[in-house]
Amino acid sequence: MTDLKGFSLPRTAEGRSSLVPAPPWHYVGDFLVIEFWCDPDAVAASLPPGLEPYADDPGRAAALFVDWQSCVTDRNELVDPARSQYKEFFLILNATLDGQHVTTCPAIWVDRDFALVRGWIQGFPKKLGSVWITRTFGLDCIADPGVKPGATFGGTLAANDRRLAEGTVTLERVSESGPTHNDPRLVNVRHFPQLAAGGHETPAVHELVGARSNNRAISPIWEGSSTLELSGAPNEEHLAFQPVRMGKGFRFTFAYTVDDLETIRDLR
Amino acid sequence: MTDLKGFSLPRTAEGRSSLVPAPPWHYVGDFLVIEFWCDPDAVAASLPPGLEPYADDPGRAAALFVDWQSCVTDRNELVDPARSQYKEFFLILNATLDGQHVTTCPAIWVDRDFALVRGWIQGFPKKLGSVWITRTFGLDCIADPGVKPGATFGGTLAANDRRLAEGTVTLERVSESGPTHNDPRLVNVRHFPQLAAGGHETPAVHELVGARSNNRAISPIWEGSSTLELSGAPNEEHLAFQPVRMGKGFRFTFAYTVDDLETIRDLR
Amino acid sequence: MTDLKGFSLPRTAEGRSSLVPAPPWHYVGDFLVIEFWCDPDAVAASLPPGLEPYADDPGRAAALFVDWQSCVTDRNELVDPARSQYKEFFLILNATLDGQHVTTCPAIWVDRDFALVRGWIQGFPKKLGSVWITRTFGLDCIADPGVKPGATFGGTLAANDRRLAEGTVTLERVSESGPTHNDPRLVNVRHFPQLAAGGHETPAVHELVGARSNNRAISPIWEGSSTLELSGAPNEEHLAFQPVRMGKGFRFTFAYTVDDLETIRDLR
Amino acid sequence: MTDLKGFSLPRTAEGRSSLVPAPPWHYVGDFLVIEFWCDPDAVAASLPPGLEPYADDPGRAAALFVDWQSCVTDRNELVDPARSQYKEFFLILNATLDGQHVTTCPAIWVDRDFALVRGWIQGFPKKLGSVWITRTFGLDCIADPGVKPGATFGGTLAANDRRLAEGTVTLERVSESGPTHNDPRLVNVRHFPQLAAGGHETPAVHELVGARSNNRAISPIWEGSSTLELSGAPNEEHLAFQPVRMGKGFRFTFAYTVDDLETIRDLR
Repeated sequence: MTDLKGFSLPRTAEGRSSLVPAPPWHYVGDFLVIEFWCDPDAVAASLPPGLEPYADDPGRAAALFVDWQSCVTDRNELVDPARSQYKEFFLILNATLDGQHVTTCPAIWVDRDFALVRGWIQGFPKKLGSVWITRTFGLDCIADPGVKPGATFGGTLAANDRRLAEGTVTLERVSESGPTHNDPRLVNVRHFPQLAAGGHETPAVHELVGARSNNRAISPIWEGSSTLELSGAPNEEHLAFQPVRMGKGFRFTFAYTVDDLETIRDLR
Repeated sequence: MTDLKGFSLPRTAEGRSSLVPAPPWHYVGDFLVIEFWCDPDAVAASLPPGLEPYADDPGRAAALFVDWQSCVTDRNELVDPARSQYKEFFLILNATLDGQHVTTCPAIWVDRDFALVRGWIQGFPKKLGSVWITRTFGLDCIADPGVKPGATFGGTLAANDRRLAEGTVTLERVSESGPTHNDPRLVNVRHFPQLAAGGHETPAVHELVGARSNNRAISPIWEGSSTLELSGAPNEEHLAFQPVRMGKGFRFTFAYTVDDLETIRDLR
Repeated sequence: MTDLKGFSLPRTAEGRSSLVPAPPWHYVGDFLVIEFWCDPDAVAASLPPGLEPYADDPGRAAALFVDWQSCVTDRNELVDPARSQYKEFFLILNATLDGQHVTTCPAIWVDRDFALVRGWIQGFPKKLGSVWITRTFGLDCIADPGVKPGATFGGTLAANDRRLAEGTVTLERVSESGPTHNDPRLVNVRHFPQLAAGGHETPAVHELVGARSNNRAISPIWEGSSTLELSGAPNEEHLAFQPVRMGKGFRFTFAYTVDDLETIRDLR
Repeated sequence: MTDLKGFSLPRTAEGRSSLVPAPPWHYVGDFLVIEFWCDPDAVAASLPPGLEPYADDPGRAAALFVDWQSCVTDRNELVDPARSQYKEFFLILNATLDGQHVTTCPAIWVDRDFALVRGWIQGFPKKLGSVWITRTFGLDCIADPGVKPGATFGGTLAANDRRLAEGTVTLERVSESGPTHNDPRLVNVRHFPQLAAGGHETPAVHELVGARSNNRAISPIWEGSSTLELSGAPNEEHLAFQPVRMGKGFRFTFAYTVDDLETIRDLR
């Protein structure tokens, strides 16, 4: 019995229609990383099974605004950039897994469909949102903040027509250390529900997974002060992670390739 | 070990953040149904495993434009309509499964995230698109086509900034039979990929499923002539179903509830 | 010297590219009208030259959510509905002009370009926004609020990724009077700036205008209770009109044609 | 009689709501310039009054994709980038005015409201469209085309859900001359219609204007080969400028400030 072709739906005769084409997926993006601390109880209540609060520094978290461009290996999307570019906002929380320091992503929004489903395949709980991020163009002029002391970059997130987050990073110096709150390995839950009656509580896929990547490249990192304000919505809970203390902000460009994922534990 | 809550990602402390909340899901929508025939070879090449071409009437297909409003049982989304309304275009092909006449959906686009993922959970291969559909408001005036002989309703679909389909239905009379091309039960493939290296060809979920619904309600059905023109894109294959012969077009309003799905066969 | 053709920019060889084609413009739409009172001082500070506060009932105002379809006389847009449909939110304030009771629109948002510029031509200070409005489909089902006592219709507005307004109307009965806060004639300011250096304070067009329309048609009107909450933004001032007291809410369908405008007074 | 405040509608009590705030307006953007030649008759038929075809090189034209960031002098928009960034596609034609070599813009699309109206104030016939442009991030990686020989940048335009243009520039070398087709001064028509009955043919503003700018800054310019394909739509005429011969393509970053406009001639 011959099957249709494609890494993801839609699977078709030729296999070139998949919303998410087969990996490897190559990414490059401009990052704003905002380090902060939030209510440790909110973190503890939001960790997937197996993760424990990070006792060494309770409430450690970070917010990231990223302006992405991505493609598969033949790079066909790069000249049809509607299928290549997207913007993203996400939060990460610090935790431990079997005694190892890890991070996990409780909330994330992107502005394109391929990025949303590609996220679900990796265990990122993506929704659609509208994300805007200040850019620099490398010209010394009024409309460009520049990459220099005093330059402020802003990021905003909205979903379902509500602003859910806004943050800034004001550059002060080249960073020696780079960001640390989002440094530990990212552990998420891949999850795909059942719809069959009686099965709504027993997902088809429910597993703890660890991110893997390669081909990592990074620009010089700038650091400085940061701000972050989260706002609530009836169908969102990220407000629980409202900052109680701010850390540094960072700006840099980062690239990597994803074509693998570690399955840590089946949670069913 | 306590787990987080929610029918779908994001799963959270309170469980009210799921992109797709738990069923039942209640729908109502205005439909344009366009019946046509396309190349039988294209149909044969596009059927999932287990389905056979519908030999009694090769190439039988339909295109549907739907202007939807949906909610869960507490109807909270109805007064926050950004989370309730969406528009959809899809194609269906006629086939047989174990000798039974069925339909299957090879291509479908919606304009909201919750509808996209809710579709994947049911086996609909949804992508995001922009869909527009002529409306009637029930006032006899120039800007309203009315529901009467000679009234023309149009639908258009674009995705990734390319127009992929446009169609019309021109009403002639109240329909006695209603549409038939999309009448047989809908059979799709629920599919969720693996990302672990070595597993890209062995999806985590890959099963033939049969749609189930209840609480069905329908308005009077109007019928008339129809047009449909499909246009291609580098990452789409629906152009293979370009009409070679047109059938009737229909317009009506339809409502139903979904809270179940039949798993017919595991395809792994 | 032959000129190019078209009612508005772009003016071209054939004249069929104008963003706003020549009038008459025919409209039909579903309305939510929310009557309220706001701070009379805010109203007084926001009236264009020549208008005086409405002393008989200070602070009288209304908010309208409208789900529109529009076209020119050949109705070509109706089957290409991307160019025909739009949603709108606006506020109106009560005032007097030369002793006559009038209304004026201090803030309005639409979601399509043709509607934005068509508004400027009429003196409506339109910006782009995202507007959502609960719909009814005429089927008795869970996803349809229906047009009956207890049915609640919601409207929301966002612009630049901030929610700026949300309101509801809960139907109680067929209305005998219909809405009154938005009943008096609408008087706005047509305004088009100069860019030439030295002329930034002396607009090219700056005139008090009175709306005119014909072919008016209306459905039965339902009325009930209402809510409205406005939210601010750095580049908006509508928050000054936050309701201090709510009036009735109304829902109905309305159609009209616009092809004229009264110039009341040149304000330059 | 006190007037409301603001450079453009909406004019308000405080004057901070104008869709287009008062100039100066500061811009920086990444440019793709595609030089080509089209049908000289189409050019001749599309010139505003006073402009003559450029006899030295008939049909000379260019297409520009620009990824912009802009702000006023206090730069408040830069950290609320939804009000600062936009993308643009436009065509320019070569012509003469009183014997001087000039250019004019027959068609232009942007993706934000403030940019649309800011264009009308300058005589640019802007509509809303969706524009995508390949980006470079300055990291040597697969997802970044780089700025180097062989790198291909693409641009696409859609409006009303139809793709209207797509083009590419493939870099070959640093350019010594830079682009020339768009070099002559830009002359457009500022135009604002009348709606009063009887006045639909006699616009309130109708004047030939010449662009002025200052604070110009530019990056190194790369050049190479180019492609451009235009596609039609019922409400567009840009297809008349379909390339009959391609010239070079260019990529660079450019910044300037606009706070003035020359009125050349009243066309009423």
